Amino acid sequence: MDLTVSPRAAEIAADVDTFVRERIEPAEAEITRDYASMRARGENSFVVHPKIDELKAQAREAGLWNLFLPAGEHGDEWAARFGTRGGKGFSNVDYAAIAEKTGRTALAPLIFNCNAPDTGNMEVLLKYGTREQQEEWLVPLLEGKIRSAFLMTEPAVASSDATNMAARAEVDGDEIVINGRKWWSSGAAHPDCKVFVFMGLTDPDAPRHAQHSMVLVPADAPGVTIERALPVMGQLDEPLGHCEVSLENVRVPASNVLSGPGQAFAIAQGRLGPGRIHHCMRLIGLAEMALERACRRGTERVAFGKPLVQLGGNRERIAKARIDIDMARLLVQNAAAKLDAYGTEGARVDVSAIKAVVPQIACDVIDFAIQMHGGGGMSDDFPLTSAYATARSLRLADGPDEVHLGMVARAELKPYLAAVKGEAK
Amino acid sequence: MDLTVSPRAAEIAADVDTFVRERIEPAEAEITRDYASMRARGENSFVVHPKIDELKAQAREAGLWNLFLPAGEHGDEWAARFGTRGGKGFSNVDYAAIAEKTGRTALAPLIFNCNAPDTGNMEVLLKYGTREQQEEWLVPLLEGKIRSAFLMTEPAVASSDATNMAARAEVDGDEIVINGRKWWSSGAAHPDCKVFVFMGLTDPDAPRHAQHSMVLVPADAPGVTIERALPVMGQLDEPLGHCEVSLENVRVPASNVLSGPGQAFAIAQGRLGPGRIHHCMRLIGLAEMALERACRRGTERVAFGKPLVQLGGNRERIAKARIDIDMARLLVQNAAAKLDAYGTEGARVDVSAIKAVVPQIACDVIDFAIQMHGGGGMSDDFPLTSAYATARSLRLADGPDEVHLGMVARAELKPYLAAVKGEAK
Amino acid sequence: MDLTVSPRAAEIAADVDTFVRERIEPAEAEITRDYASMRARGENSFVVHPKIDELKAQAREAGLWNLFLPAGEHGDEWAARFGTRGGKGFSNVDYAAIAEKTGRTALAPLIFNCNAPDTGNMEVLLKYGTREQQEEWLVPLLEGKIRSAFLMTEPAVASSDATNMAARAEVDGDEIVINGRKWWSSGAAHPDCKVFVFMGLTDPDAPRHAQHSMVLVPADAPGVTIERALPVMGQLDEPLGHCEVSLENVRVPASNVLSGPGQAFAIAQGRLGPGRIHHCMRLIGLAEMALERACRRGTERVAFGKPLVQLGGNRERIAKARIDIDMARLLVQNAAAKLDAYGTEGARVDVSAIKAVVPQIACDVIDFAIQMHGGGGMSDDFPLTSAYATARSLRLADGPDEVHLGMVARAELKPYLAAVKGEAK
Amino acid sequence: MDLTVSPRAAEIAADVDTFVRERIEPAEAEITRDYASMRARGENSFVVHPKIDELKAQAREAGLWNLFLPAGEHGDEWAARFGTRGGKGFSNVDYAAIAEKTGRTALAPLIFNCNAPDTGNMEVLLKYGTREQQEEWLVPLLEGKIRSAFLMTEPAVASSDATNMAARAEVDGDEIVINGRKWWSSGAAHPDCKVFVFMGLTDPDAPRHAQHSMVLVPADAPGVTIERALPVMGQLDEPLGHCEVSLENVRVPASNVLSGPGQAFAIAQGRLGPGRIHHCMRLIGLAEMALERACRRGTERVAFGKPLVQLGGNRERIAKARIDIDMARLLVQNAAAKLDAYGTEGARVDVSAIKAVVPQIACDVIDFAIQMHGGGGMSDDFPLTSAYATARSLRLADGPDEVHLGMVARAELKPYLAAVKGEAK
Repeated sequence: MDLTVSPRAAEIAADVDTFVRERIEPAEAEITRDYASMRARGENSFVVHPKIDELKAQAREAGLWNLFLPAGEHGDEWAARFGTRGGKGFSNVDYAAIAEKTGRTALAPLIFNCNAPDTGNMEVLLKYGTREQQEEWLVPLLEGKIRSAFLMTEPAVASSDATNMAARAEVDGDEIVINGRKWWSSGAAHPDCKVFVFMGLTDPDAPRHAQHSMVLVPADAPGVTIERALPVMGQLDEPLGHCEVSLENVRVPASNVLSGPGQAFAIAQGRLGPGRIHHCMRLIGLAEMALERACRRGTERVAFGKPLVQLGGNRERIAKARIDIDMARLLVQNAAAKLDAYGTEGARVDVSAIKAVVPQIACDVIDFAIQMHGGGGMSDDFPLTSAYATARSLRLADGPDEVHLGMVARAELKPYLAAVKGEAK
Repeated sequence: MDLTVSPRAAEIAADVDTFVRERIEPAEAEITRDYASMRARGENSFVVHPKIDELKAQAREAGLWNLFLPAGEHGDEWAARFGTRGGKGFSNVDYAAIAEKTGRTALAPLIFNCNAPDTGNMEVLLKYGTREQQEEWLVPLLEGKIRSAFLMTEPAVASSDATNMAARAEVDGDEIVINGRKWWSSGAAHPDCKVFVFMGLTDPDAPRHAQHSMVLVPADAPGVTIERALPVMGQLDEPLGHCEVSLENVRVPASNVLSGPGQAFAIAQGRLGPGRIHHCMRLIGLAEMALERACRRGTERVAFGKPLVQLGGNRERIAKARIDIDMARLLVQNAAAKLDAYGTEGARVDVSAIKAVVPQIACDVIDFAIQMHGGGGMSDDFPLTSAYATARSLRLADGPDEVHLGMVARAELKPYLAAVKGEAK
Repeated sequence: MDLTVSPRAAEIAADVDTFVRERIEPAEAEITRDYASMRARGENSFVVHPKIDELKAQAREAGLWNLFLPAGEHGDEWAARFGTRGGKGFSNVDYAAIAEKTGRTALAPLIFNCNAPDTGNMEVLLKYGTREQQEEWLVPLLEGKIRSAFLMTEPAVASSDATNMAARAEVDGDEIVINGRKWWSSGAAHPDCKVFVFMGLTDPDAPRHAQHSMVLVPADAPGVTIERALPVMGQLDEPLGHCEVSLENVRVPASNVLSGPGQAFAIAQGRLGPGRIHHCMRLIGLAEMALERACRRGTERVAFGKPLVQLGGNRERIAKARIDIDMARLLVQNAAAKLDAYGTEGARVDVSAIKAVVPQIACDVIDFAIQMHGGGGMSDDFPLTSAYATARSLRLADGPDEVHLGMVARAELKPYLAAVKGEAK
Repeated sequence: MDLTVSPRAAEIAADVDTFVRERIEPAEAEITRDYASMRARGENSFVVHPKIDELKAQAREAGLWNLFLPAGEHGDEWAARFGTRGGKGFSNVDYAAIAEKTGRTALAPLIFNCNAPDTGNMEVLLKYGTREQQEEWLVPLLEGKIRSAFLMTEPAVASSDATNMAARAEVDGDEIVINGRKWWSSGAAHPDCKVFVFMGLTDPDAPRHAQHSMVLVPADAPGVTIERALPVMGQLDEPLGHCEVSLENVRVPASNVLSGPGQAFAIAQGRLGPGRIHHCMRLIGLAEMALERACRRGTERVAFGKPLVQLGGNRERIAKARIDIDMARLLVQNAAAKLDAYGTEGARVDVSAIKAVVPQIACDVIDFAIQMHGGGGMSDDFPLTSAYATARSLRLADGPDEVHLGMVARAELKPYLAAVKGEAK
């Protein structure tokens, strides 16, 4: 495959990198500290730190904005309208290079208006929203004025099997009635979160992947309660938050059902392909950040008369981290290229492959960086435990490792099982 | 070796297990929640939850108290005086069996008055304290009325090489003047923490392992400041806390130097042997807790029509966890038996071996349990991320893995290097 | 558990160790070379090297003979009669210590008349043979005059599931008629191999574990053909050999069926417990040999100005090998102690656990030793690739890793599955 | 990078694949069996099996010949002259795709006249040989009429540090006098091996990488003795063989020194870059072959009522193998593209990275395939143990893993160490 990044994307990736290193990372410690202070004072920390708004404005000004918008008719149109530098969307290969650079710190994607789950929700609105829905929700999202959440995972069932989803989205005349409890709804704690993309069971008698619907639910609809923000290995990830949300007899117009009842899985498939590429590339950026810190700390700290990097197996671990990161990046770029060339279905197995392997590699590299930092690595003085929490959670979010390995295995075995069956005839 | 646990210890271990399962674990969720609430309200959460005091009283009443006291003249004497059931101390093999049972939850050791770092500090006072020091500090510690901290690790140097320690404990006439900054001083945030065992540099010109002294420092001495409580992967571990402490011109009488100036490493050696056994056995208990939860969750949750334990490699992972835990326990028991038979020096390599391998095994088992819990496993709804933080931090605390592996390698290679040198003559 | 080895066993283990190091290992290179020469000259290499006979005579003379015989009425009787030093059999814990010492080299077990599969076959004859069968086969086996083979695994089916066995042992009046093809029949190429213990299907309609019988078949019975000796990673393991054997209308008296038709699995269970302990302890001896060589080579060879052991992660790998070996040994000793205390059924899961983990640990240690030997490690100049072949084959022989892990998982999950079912009622 | 394979290379790769699957693999079993028979009969097995000659003729006829020749002036010239289809050499990216297909079986590279070490030797002659040397040695090599060997590794020193090389190539007037002992000289046992490329010490006082020379030595020069063919995990790899060679006062004209005395390391650098790409891509083909067999066997064999692939963690292992192979391939393709774009020095670290990781991945996949084949996998009935031997030996040949990891670590740490030094000024 041609994994070459276009000159425009390469330039933007470089500018994003500079922006992250020179503006976001220096602000990160302050922002993190301020959120911690708010929590320590018992204040609501799910507020937008003024520094974030300031950086967002700078990013938008620089055209480093909505970079996730896909190339092609619709993406280009929105990109032109909402300030992406160059005025066009990007291929997956191109955006992957940019996403890597935004992955160095948890704050960056938000600042470039490229963070999950808003990106995925915006793509859904872009593809499946009516013009009215786009004007109501997509426009302010693209302007970074409002935020959104995606309500899929449920506390009461094993959500690794998405067909387990039990929350209901039932048709009642020209309304949809929603009941159930969701969690891990990232972004729902953000003060500007105005809309949920909700998935729920509409018709238990339909075929397995046509029972569920995807519905737009205003965050302030009667019956919606944000129960709590869940910690992820102790991290609250302000200002987004990962929430448990209950929905009790929430009623929305039937027109809020995206693409019609029973289409949730069909839409989700298309949403998840690029989303997983983004997640994985951001993790590669995160792993690069961790490796950088490991190398720097390891050359500066001295034990037994030598810098840490000269002791024991540390150099081998640095080399393995480098190699693993490079392999991971190539695998993601290759999946991105396939997604560009063959579409969601043609790249499905490749996307599962990266999702099954990249978070683990990121975890390993970050864990090594923690170890190189000694006790400090376990504290919040370095963004390493939060990086670990992010990477570790992606071994579960958007499908656990095991489910994705299962997809890869199924594809690999398909011809052999067919041959055996053929024989059996 | 004979790894048999004595009937008395086996009985107490069983009672501790019952106490933990029936009283502490049910209270754990409430206590954890209450600490979280205090934090959320911006209150100081380093207070003793009333339930803890209640459980401590029950534990002491049941004679499940100060169980760490070592067999032998002094240990037995103190055990008899301070309410250990049976009135005698335990061998390391015996106490290991008990420590495992206290390891299921972070709160349990505290409730049995068997928690680090108080146990190690009590042992130091027991062995090296004067009668006056014992009455002043050891007695209230054994009664669970005060708490203590151990001030060794420093933020400014690689503490994996303990000789890097730079905080000073300088003799000035009949006083010791203390200056420096320490961190990871566990227990220092506890409201009842009254005394520090401080290690610092006294004589930079002495031989490498005779430069440092161990000094008793009252927590309220002028010049002592608790700078902050450090989070460990987001956990504050109330009510103990892991603190950064600064000491500025703190003056204590010269008689507060334990065993005399320059003796810190000699004392530390004796302190760390049993301490590492305790840590490792508690981790085995923690890993057992995690495996139990993995099995329970894995049989209850259903995906793709089957309980999770029937899917993919989950059964193999359960089997490997079982085998790894069993190997780890045997290795610790064997090290404990060597410590009983041959003393600290005779068991030094064995103790390094367990310290190098058990925390990693515990991490792996807990990580698997998290994965089996899906998203929930990443939250605080289950005591799994806190268990992970505990186990992960022990890959650094009391010597990082790499240092302990280095000790094992040195011992293994000794005869070969001697042979090569012999040849070289 | 008490894992203490008795003084008698410890003394014999030490003498075996000396015998192996001083007599067998020095002869090993010569014997290996001579077998290679025979092969190179196109001669039959399945002959007994005269040095082997000489060493066997010395071992018997020293009472280092039939050491595998189990303690207890029958074992003691045979041990007294056939020259085991001390005149008594050993507990599993005791014999494990001895077996480890015989494991350093593939030849040693043969020289002490303690090699698989003869030991297992002798145990079967001891327990299930008639007095006549014992006089005919067991006596010459215990004298080391004849050898035997165990015919279980079959080329045409997945023998990991032993119930797949398809070779037939059909009752025809007072005869048994045997038909089928077996492989991995170790020892069948030995010139003195006179008897096979054959497992085959007798009654396909019986319950799953009562369909097969175990039959004594003279090696020279009409219809028996040794088809070939199979290489194991290129090793032929003279003089024993691992053979493919075809049996065509082989007829033996019905009295040759051990314990009666349909009893094969019942007998095999009892046979495999101690056998797996022996295999695993020998592998630990083999791993110790490999680690010794790694340390020696690593201190003697110099690259980049330093002995290899000072480079990169080599010391960490040495430490991990030491720790893994020690954990493995303790796990096997613990399983042996359980076998002594609770019998085959009581120790079944523990025996599966060691079988699932020890061969892999041995493979890893040997692989590291190969790496430390550079190119030489891949050749036959060192007994490392043959050691690797031995260890690797034990990840398959006597049940592959996966089957044993399955047994451990089943035991672990039993209470949870029962609880879930209970709830379901 | 653009990893796209050119249409011409893709077509040839496909044809090579078909040729290997339809002609070479079916013949492989017969050829292997015949070599085994020769050995069993005590005959010299280092002969060219007639089937090999036949297949070579077919391959040359089909233009699937000397495909390794590099694109560019010289490579194209020789490619045109010696029958490469298309008459031109290939870029590294292109040839990598072809090499993968030749890697499925050990025999294939020989049949396409693309086997190590002849390819490397031909490249050296192509770049550094005089016109006379090219006519004498390169022409018959390109015609597949003679074979060559590369004499570098020595039994007496740790050859992982190539500067340890102690065999001498001393200038004596207009002659070079060669003394020393080499081993792992692959191809030296081939009956047509006519020339050695020998590396030896010329000037111990020169700078570290300018002490050694590379010399053409006729295989039949007086003083040359092939001492033996070394087994590689029991494999002799006929007809090439891996030999130990002694050279005693071997005299060749000074003009046989390639590129002049002291240039050996400079030449070797250029030789090893593409060579390691070839090795790694062939290993990927080998791993694909193993994975195919694992899937096929795993679907055909049944245990416990299910095909093996449905049991335990087998599907996860299949998925991981697929992912690892894909990551490895991409990493090698990327290194090849860098080699094409930036030359040997520019791709040096990338080449070390693939050499450090690909053989281990291949070993793991092949080991899994062995496990899926049960006992059969350990025998010669499947080309799996020989594949394992090949892959395992490449963790040592051409630089052990540890040396290559060291190279990668050095490059990674360079900026950090420079920064620390800068600070130190």
